[in-house]
Amino acid sequence: MVYLDNGATTAPYPEVVETMKEVLQTYYGNPSSLHHLGVQSEKVLKQSRELTAKFLEVSPGEIVFTSGATESNNTAIKGIAFQYQNRGKHIITSAVEHPAVLDVCKQLQDIFGVRLTVLPVDSKGMVRLDDLKQAITDETILVSIMFVNNEVGSIQPIQEIGNYLKSFPKIFFHVDAVQAFGKIPVKPETLGIDLLSLSAHKFHGPKGTGILYVRKGTQLTPLLVGGGQEAKFRPGTENLAGIVGMVKAMRLTQQKLKDQPDALKRMRNRLVEGLQGLEGCYINSPEEGAPHILNLSVPGVKSEVLLHSLEDKGIYVSTKSACSSKLDRPSRVLMEMGLGEERARSALRISLSYENTIDEMDYFITTMKQVVPQLKQMLNVR
Amino acid sequence: MVYLDNGATTAPYPEVVETMKEVLQTYYGNPSSLHHLGVQSEKVLKQSRELTAKFLEVSPGEIVFTSGATESNNTAIKGIAFQYQNRGKHIITSAVEHPAVLDVCKQLQDIFGVRLTVLPVDSKGMVRLDDLKQAITDETILVSIMFVNNEVGSIQPIQEIGNYLKSFPKIFFHVDAVQAFGKIPVKPETLGIDLLSLSAHKFHGPKGTGILYVRKGTQLTPLLVGGGQEAKFRPGTENLAGIVGMVKAMRLTQQKLKDQPDALKRMRNRLVEGLQGLEGCYINSPEEGAPHILNLSVPGVKSEVLLHSLEDKGIYVSTKSACSSKLDRPSRVLMEMGLGEERARSALRISLSYENTIDEMDYFITTMKQVVPQLKQMLNVR
Ligand SMILES: Cc1ncc(COP(=O)(O)O)c(C=O)c1O
Ligand SMILES: Cc1ncc(COP(=O)(O)O)c(C=O)c1O
Repeated sequence: MVYLDNGATTAPYPEVVETMKEVLQTYYGNPSSLHHLGVQSEKVLKQSRELTAKFLEVSPGEIVFTSGATESNNTAIKGIAFQYQNRGKHIITSAVEHPAVLDVCKQLQDIFGVRLTVLPVDSKGMVRLDDLKQAITDETILVSIMFVNNEVGSIQPIQEIGNYLKSFPKIFFHVDAVQAFGKIPVKPETLGIDLLSLSAHKFHGPKGTGILYVRKGTQLTPLLVGGGQEAKFRPGTENLAGIVGMVKAMRLTQQKLKDQPDALKRMRNRLVEGLQGLEGCYINSPEEGAPHILNLSVPGVKSEVLLHSLEDKGIYVSTKSACSSKLDRPSRVLMEMGLGEERARSALRISLSYENTIDEMDYFITTMKQVVPQLKQMLNVR
Repeated sequence: MVYLDNGATTAPYPEVVETMKEVLQTYYGNPSSLHHLGVQSEKVLKQSRELTAKFLEVSPGEIVFTSGATESNNTAIKGIAFQYQNRGKHIITSAVEHPAVLDVCKQLQDIFGVRLTVLPVDSKGMVRLDDLKQAITDETILVSIMFVNNEVGSIQPIQEIGNYLKSFPKIFFHVDAVQAFGKIPVKPETLGIDLLSLSAHKFHGPKGTGILYVRKGTQLTPLLVGGGQEAKFRPGTENLAGIVGMVKAMRLTQQKLKDQPDALKRMRNRLVEGLQGLEGCYINSPEEGAPHILNLSVPGVKSEVLLHSLEDKGIYVSTKSACSSKLDRPSRVLMEMGLGEERARSALRISLSYENTIDEMDYFITTMKQVVPQLKQMLNVR
């Protein structure tokens, strides 16, 4: 099996699974309990928070553990919208956000009277700083822009936006960094980010765990209310096994980024080069995009058809974002990039991890060169 | 070690840990992915939903998997409040709810203009149907009453409330059944319940997983918005290992309830009898309460002091609900029951599971008879 769908989800590292098993068996006490079992769990929780903070180069008090990026995004965006509604009711986001950002903003617009500006993107899938500058009003309280696009891998100008927003101390900056962590450096503090979302299963951690970085001093109306855990930002009995598993995965992933900083890029380059000779195959990802995502189209061959042909050869890829892959619609992201419906209906996303190899890239290329001409002939594509 | 803090959390069954490990290793595909790995995960997810529905005697389409009861409660209560705000803005709950219900209602009151009625309880910790009847107005859209109280074990008159509310088709009935599942039968449909919350770690399942039962036809404004999973009631990549672990724990727990329907009750009775001879020790739980919770006080001896003395003998109990145990306040539930501050400051909660034994009860009794007189002498309690 050649698994090239790491943007959808990743296989947990064996070490993560082992660690989770151990925590489930040994540290099952409720971190809030006063007795020894509780105190032990609380210590493990504290250590996990400190490690997470270290990896992101922030303070432990700025780390909130969540059930995943969907929750992190909702907590951040709605938390700011409700907390600061008297300051203003305008939010700015981009047209290529994941639904866990875009649809949250739309819900606020539809139900809670928030005014929403959705920034367009250029042909590389990137927002323009100038568009953002023009969109800002006295009413703006939040800008939410993703770090790396999940379908095509475009890296947004986060540093530039963060710098620019520094002169607007009343505007919060939220970044969905789900597809960035472990692939490019993610340092919220130096980037001028106030809120940042991560999801563990995108870097070989367990599903159902995530992180929300909340810069010190940022208030949020909590989305979840209850027993007061996570400094009231996110109550509920802590999923300690999941948290420890996630932190383990963070450590291993950051180590790989450090040890083999070019590994992903090398594999992606190999794909780009190898596919150059394949007629009718277009690369949709910008050259300077994230190293682990390559989006391509074979106009005339629908995404699902090519996906299943590759699957027959043991290669797993995806059409667009996993959660939207069952909807028979052209990729929203490619449409926003102006690539047209034909390209948007025939798009494939190849997404890599450090577990992939150059050999697998070569197998993918060979298979494409075999499968695509066959399909084109069968489907009568010129 | 004698673990008598199962109301705070339970140790996952070994079978649960094994199952989770297997799912983490084998079914890591994203259930939304179109390829085989995704399809396999989706099948496992579907089976889990069907089993859950069977255990609760409802339809699979009525089961929403969440990250725990805190999320289930927030989703249910806020979901109804926002969805039906044009119908009315009045919510009724009780004074002895867990913060994951009571504080949610208070947030709606403080921030979103919801009118809240908090029903009092009698000396047994139970709400009175008459009080509820009088509280209902044309504006009422939701009644949220817990099934079993987490501190004293009182069983609320859920069937009566459910029956009564049948004549108010515009009022939804939410039940926090976290402390009920596996201890008494929980059948939302026959009880007239529209929304019901469960948390897996209270019945030897993994932390970070829960269930929200949503009766067919009930609309909710989703708390989390995103990729559309869980029929849009709760998007986010599914925590499949957690879900399968939870379902395993449900099955094992329900089997124990079936095989040994009196096991918990017998242990609790043993405690009550054994402690009768202990001077200055009062039982706070009603006789007809849930079989796994026994709340007692030794006036003059602060909860924490007795807790740690018992801990020295290897016995783990709690003072009140785990999440509030670090606040130096008398138990809110005991205060609401009219037991007075002295009793409320010296309360201990013993909470059982099928894993406990009669021998452990005897050890607890012996230890109490040894420790309590010593403490009373030391603290100069008459
Ligand atoms: C960019 C981005 N944001 C948010 C999410 C949502 O993460 P999760 O499903 O883990 O909540 C995903 C992946 O699904 C993603 O790729
Ligand atoms: C009655 C009740 N409701 C809700 C909860 C919250 O559950 P969780 O912390 O798993 O979200 C608990 C336990 O903590 C509880 O006892």
